[in-house]
Amino acid sequence: MPKIDIDAAPLRRGSIYPEPYASQMAGRSSRRLGDLAGLTQFGANIVYLEPGAVASLRHWHLNEDEFAIVLTGTLILAEDSGETPMRPGDCAAWKAGVPVGHRFVNRTDAPASFLVVGSKAPAEVATYTEVDLKLFIAGGKARATYHDGSDWAGPRNLAPQGGKE
Amino acid sequence: MPKIDIDAAPLRRGSIYPEPYASQMAGRSSRRLGDLAGLTQFGANIVYLEPGAVASLRHWHLNEDEFAIVLTGTLILAEDSGETPMRPGDCAAWKAGVPVGHRFVNRTDAPASFLVVGSKAPAEVATYTEVDLKLFIAGGKARATYHDGSDWAGPRNLAPQGGKE
Repeated sequence: MPKIDIDAAPLRRGSIYPEPYASQMAGRSSRRLGDLAGLTQFGANIVYLEPGAVASLRHWHLNEDEFAIVLTGTLILAEDSGETPMRPGDCAAWKAGVPVGHRFVNRTDAPASFLVVGSKAPAEVATYTEVDLKLFIAGGKARATYHDGSDWAGPRNLAPQGGKE
Repeated sequence: MPKIDIDAAPLRRGSIYPEPYASQMAGRSSRRLGDLAGLTQFGANIVYLEPGAVASLRHWHLNEDEFAIVLTGTLILAEDSGETPMRPGDCAAWKAGVPVGHRFVNRTDAPASFLVVGSKAPAEVATYTEVDLKLFIAGGKARATYHDGSDWAGPRNLAPQGGKE
């Protein structure tokens, strides 16, 4: 398979999060390059963040390893354990099951982007560490619960987990 | 897990290939960032190619998806199907089991590097398309055969597979 035509991967917006979190992802878009190339074992997506945008809620994955490299601009890696500025070529990784919430934030006046790679487990659980939300993801669908497993019925914040934001 | 300290990943040289192919990989080195961060589901390695160096023999994987993005310099993606210049930000991917041999070559006077991600299958078969070699890889060890499965006993070239090199 030759070089990937990046612009041929649809620019995706939107979110699997329930509101009000989905709307907080405005300014985020992505292209799924691995899917475009027919890969099935892991995803390889470029995520674009406009000034002020965030890539996700702060979260960790139960079953899927994750790796990211900054491509353009300057990002803040905001984790429960603290914040780190990230520039092009800087990398970070999160082993499946390690409960350290993390997300990328663009606090600059310029666009930024990163490549993120994640395994494709048959079923995944994402736990959010600043809001009382868990997503059970399988077959392309997501079911939302609170951390205690009860059905999600609206936003609840959690106590701060560290890392000023 | 915070930002990865790239320089903390050992700079690896050497090759699992039998000679004379191992020596042809001089000028190639790599850092295994995913391993350093404790990832087990896929590898994420930065490969550095000095001027004139090649990243591998031209090959394809039976079981493991592969994805690459050029980080610095200019590389040639040399495949059985042709050649493509690749610059920073350019990506390519190879779905497991698709028999298209590929490798990166640095034909410039400057160093170049790329990030490569590959699944970690319990056992893997790499088939080389310019030389009569197959490697069966499991448990960190590689067994070499000819394409017909008989034990490898020295180099044999194959008919050219396309792509001038």
